[in-house]
Amino acid sequence: MTAPREQREFFAVRTVGEALAGFRPARRTSTERVTLQEALGRVPADSVRAPQALPGFARATVDGFAVRAADTYGVSDGQPGYLDLAGEARMGRPPDAALRPGAAIAIATGAPLPPEADAVVKVEHTQSTLPGLIEVVRPATPGEGMVRPDEDAAAGAELARPGRPLRPADLGMLAAAGVTDLRVRARPRVAIASTGDELVPGDTAELEVGQVRDATAPALAALVREAGGEPTFAGIVPDEREALEATLRHALARPCDLLVVSAGSSVGARDETASAVASLGEPGIWCHGLALRPGKPTLLADCGGVPVIGLPGNPRSALVVFRLVGMPLVRLVAGCTDPPPEPSVRVRLGRDLPSAAGRLDVVQVSIDDDVATPLFGSSALLSILARADGHLVVPESATGLPAGAEVEVTLYR
Amino acid sequence: MTAPREQREFFAVRTVGEALAGFRPARRTSTERVTLQEALGRVPADSVRAPQALPGFARATVDGFAVRAADTYGVSDGQPGYLDLAGEARMGRPPDAALRPGAAIAIATGAPLPPEADAVVKVEHTQSTLPGLIEVVRPATPGEGMVRPDEDAAAGAELARPGRPLRPADLGMLAAAGVTDLRVRARPRVAIASTGDELVPGDTAELEVGQVRDATAPALAALVREAGGEPTFAGIVPDEREALEATLRHALARPCDLLVVSAGSSVGARDETASAVASLGEPGIWCHGLALRPGKPTLLADCGGVPVIGLPGNPRSALVVFRLVGMPLVRLVAGCTDPPPEPSVRVRLGRDLPSAAGRLDVVQVSIDDDVATPLFGSSALLSILARADGHLVVPESATGLPAGAEVEVTLYR
Repeated sequence: MTAPREQREFFAVRTVGEALAGFRPARRTSTERVTLQEALGRVPADSVRAPQALPGFARATVDGFAVRAADTYGVSDGQPGYLDLAGEARMGRPPDAALRPGAAIAIATGAPLPPEADAVVKVEHTQSTLPGLIEVVRPATPGEGMVRPDEDAAAGAELARPGRPLRPADLGMLAAAGVTDLRVRARPRVAIASTGDELVPGDTAELEVGQVRDATAPALAALVREAGGEPTFAGIVPDEREALEATLRHALARPCDLLVVSAGSSVGARDETASAVASLGEPGIWCHGLALRPGKPTLLADCGGVPVIGLPGNPRSALVVFRLVGMPLVRLVAGCTDPPPEPSVRVRLGRDLPSAAGRLDVVQVSIDDDVATPLFGSSALLSILARADGHLVVPESATGLPAGAEVEVTLYR
Repeated sequence: MTAPREQREFFAVRTVGEALAGFRPARRTSTERVTLQEALGRVPADSVRAPQALPGFARATVDGFAVRAADTYGVSDGQPGYLDLAGEARMGRPPDAALRPGAAIAIATGAPLPPEADAVVKVEHTQSTLPGLIEVVRPATPGEGMVRPDEDAAAGAELARPGRPLRPADLGMLAAAGVTDLRVRARPRVAIASTGDELVPGDTAELEVGQVRDATAPALAALVREAGGEPTFAGIVPDEREALEATLRHALARPCDLLVVSAGSSVGARDETASAVASLGEPGIWCHGLALRPGKPTLLADCGGVPVIGLPGNPRSALVVFRLVGMPLVRLVAGCTDPPPEPSVRVRLGRDLPSAAGRLDVVQVSIDDDVATPLFGSSALLSILARADGHLVVPESATGLPAGAEVEVTLYR
């Protein structure tokens, strides 16, 4: 136990915005081929284009009669037009006869039009009083009741773009185009090391006084998965410089795409973490402290090309920082430039919320009847996150928010 | 091709709200044990409670000195109090000595307080000018600088509740409590059958005119996964009553928890589907048509205890219906009573949107600069879903929405 260190400890404090914009390690995961069935949420490595137009043929979108639209001009209920019923389009087969002027072909939704047809008259707009003849009582305009051969996609249209995770409809479009597999970014391998003399593994049945089970690592692993990464546990390390350094070096060599160190909770332990991280490789520590509460004691480093995040020791702080800074880094490394939208909601703040200017405050809230109630308590309490519906952010520029203010709450899922 | 059937076809049309509230098959998936590492997003089958209080001991939340708060009352910068430095609390170990009145013990964040201490004075509020003695310049209040033994969770507190998918912080709380595995609902097995004479498998390299690859099934499978289900493909069936019935019976026997029939697109094919579904078991068809656009030709049935959804043949309609009605059914069957929040955003509508009263309209939009632009086109066009940022809903009561109206858009992810 030595003198206060708060002043010297945070020698390079950055805002969260600076960290997101400025800490951009060049590392990207390699690529791999996956089948369409495995591709939901994966990040395409390349642009995928339609090899041919889709659907590839003019297709009826109603049940009725394929016609030349001009043959129906001017018809009405009082003055029906008459067309020869010249056959039936078969579903899934090429048209087997040309469409003569003055003729119509019965067609069901989804079937291909004969090349000479340019419209489909709905069955409701026809009558069939005489065999072999249909009465048309409403004129058709060209293109009506059908889709064009390239209306779903032109040949060469982009069906998947690099950097944007694949959504259900994208998989549908790729399937329609005959794409059965594609190259995507590998999931980032995220190693999570937990440090702290008090930590014991989660499967420890009985605790001694002073011991706590490692709760942060499994929660971090879940956030890694949410961001598209593949977590691995690098183990629990005591707060000793040499043991820590050895564990981190081992984790980096596995190999890994991102290293997360859930740091010991005391100031001394944080100093050890900073020294160990600084020794891992160049260019080393990028920032040592974020203007964020909770979460100030955060390290960001680039160690020989692998991004390293040193998280605060308190579970709530660690998870807040990982949501704000770690998950975007997982996505960055995966080449995900267009992340999926996060759920959020605009509600009223239920009470005054004090804050200090120059610092981003992240406040967990519960929401009831469109009112957000802040959940206060120590950063050591993980239960605040478990009870919360989400969090709001008080920006650096504000000195607080008044009761009744409209706030945007990021919802936890 | 016979006479118009639109009138008789939809003999039991329901609103989407009626379907969600009224179609509640009793089927629930069985339960299974999973490890905590596999449990993200899974639905607990039982309530899980903390076996002991957490953290289980009084714990420092600052670096400083454990004291009896009463020993610091009245101190100030001008009138410091003096306490004997009687040792150091060790991280992760029980306190090894009692705290005498008038004494203090050095303690780091996270370490256990001796039982007699009721506060931790921050190191910044002390000075150490004489060996073995500390000067306290700010009084401590009981409970300051520490968390109580049951402050994160009381013994018996609920850490996971049945019906609510597990979130990252829940996994942390369960880990802290020593829970290494738990009973969850099995993922619903969702069989997807595609019908249509025009459909060919997605791996068909060359198409004949009139053929289309099955694009709906892979997109549906992705939505099933998003809702927590496990999709299986029951194959592509031609629009023939017997073949369809055989395929559906086979799918139901596999076994399966939910059967989805992506119906043929013509009126005739839809009739075949309805007949086949009606034959599968009692109580049979619950509704035959939804007051929804796109998506009117939707079947809901309970066939011998297995919910069955017959979807419209058009890909866009099928996926809209599955989002609105199918995904909630997947969650219902999984016992998920408290689904995760969906991303949405409030924006302005870019143009007038006509609609018919008495029908729910689902309109895909693209969003740019907080303005939603409707994407119009045939329900046959899957590309509209792929291009959309999300959809808005025009309720049954409205006859349209004016340009400039504030609308809530459900975002696709």
